[in-house]
Amino acid sequence: MGAQQREAVILFSGGLDSSTVLAIAQAEGYSCSCLSFRYGQRQEIELQKARIICERAGVRRHLILRLDLGAIGGSALTADIAVPKDRSPDAMKDEIPVTYVPARNIIFLAHALAWGEVIGAADIFLGINAIDYSGYPDCRPDFLAAFEKMANLGTRMGCTERPFTLHAPLLHLRKSEIIGRGLALGVDYSLTHSCYDPLGELACGRCDACLLRLQGFAEAGYPDPVRYAGSEKVKE
Amino acid sequence: MGAQQREAVILFSGGLDSSTVLAIAQAEGYSCSCLSFRYGQRQEIELQKARIICERAGVRRHLILRLDLGAIGGSALTADIAVPKDRSPDAMKDEIPVTYVPARNIIFLAHALAWGEVIGAADIFLGINAIDYSGYPDCRPDFLAAFEKMANLGTRMGCTERPFTLHAPLLHLRKSEIIGRGLALGVDYSLTHSCYDPLGELACGRCDACLLRLQGFAEAGYPDPVRYAGSEKVKE
Repeated sequence: MGAQQREAVILFSGGLDSSTVLAIAQAEGYSCSCLSFRYGQRQEIELQKARIICERAGVRRHLILRLDLGAIGGSALTADIAVPKDRSPDAMKDEIPVTYVPARNIIFLAHALAWGEVIGAADIFLGINAIDYSGYPDCRPDFLAAFEKMANLGTRMGCTERPFTLHAPLLHLRKSEIIGRGLALGVDYSLTHSCYDPLGELACGRCDACLLRLQGFAEAGYPDPVRYAGSEKVKE
Repeated sequence: MGAQQREAVILFSGGLDSSTVLAIAQAEGYSCSCLSFRYGQRQEIELQKARIICERAGVRRHLILRLDLGAIGGSALTADIAVPKDRSPDAMKDEIPVTYVPARNIIFLAHALAWGEVIGAADIFLGINAIDYSGYPDCRPDFLAAFEKMANLGTRMGCTERPFTLHAPLLHLRKSEIIGRGLALGVDYSLTHSCYDPLGELACGRCDACLLRLQGFAEAGYPDPVRYAGSEKVKE
């Protein structure tokens, strides 16, 4: 009732998870500013999708920042290292995969703090998940809590105005549950990109991200609307 | 005796403080890889100086990364905001200055973690100081401790191999003490750049960084070897 809408920064890749997070934040009444990164990722097509999704969702701002992670390397997403294919769910859980980008979520979140300070957004949303991505250290609840504490000691806004709050609404959801939430909120998953190693517009269907996504849609009992390389839809 | 030299990442601006830190880390026996950033700062000349200092010091690696902080703005160092001049030491202590770059040290440190993971350096050195820069939230000991904890929860190296350690050897030193340490270690301060608002090669002599530097040299009883705009040295 006349109260000012709270501003939020959404870490936004244009993928299934962050698109769902955006819908959740909007449904919770936040005025959303989306932050994407061009960091030399193989799957740069996700940025085109990100732009379209932000436009359709009517977000307040969409900023795409360049990062020089390619110069650092050390990951299958940013260096000349093959993206693993056809791994079993157990293999995904066992180890930190080569698609782990060193300190990526820390770097993304650090920029979210900077932008949040400038636009006055103390709420930061991100689509990390501790179930499907249990191999990534920067997708765990204790990491999130430690980051929030650090942020509120090391920034002007956190120290002097109001503390940052990190929101990770997907943290404990299975992929099928995430999809269910998104569908209920009207997310158009045909626009979302998840594949680590796309062939043009087509998802590979075999990297960890594709396999988790396909399994999630299968469990949700809903067809995945994106196009995969080698699928019948494409061959037509 | 035959033990492998430990690898360190040095956050390296080419300024007085980080040049002293580099000398300290080398004196402690670390193999040093220096990390600098081109972030749209007014004082980009510091990067030229950084290159020269790294060369002369014989560092193992020197990486200059691009950051898009200009797109975020919010600081006199990255946006069209005047750099304050001729402020008294008390005024500097009272508030967070407009030269504060939102979340800059957090962003710098996040990249240091990423690079450290790739090159196998768990020791990160930085030249922050809690005395002269008491107005900057990201120059305080409790922030550093919180960052270190977060880093060791959120990175592959911190979680699975060996923990990151942050070293801030200047944290509790006065500027004159920093200069004394550097001189004893052979730092050539004529190569170092501190000014926030230089005129070509010349330091302005009036911004907070110049005033603290000049005061430090005066207290150390040693002439500052860099050239200042309007100084007699220049007019010759």
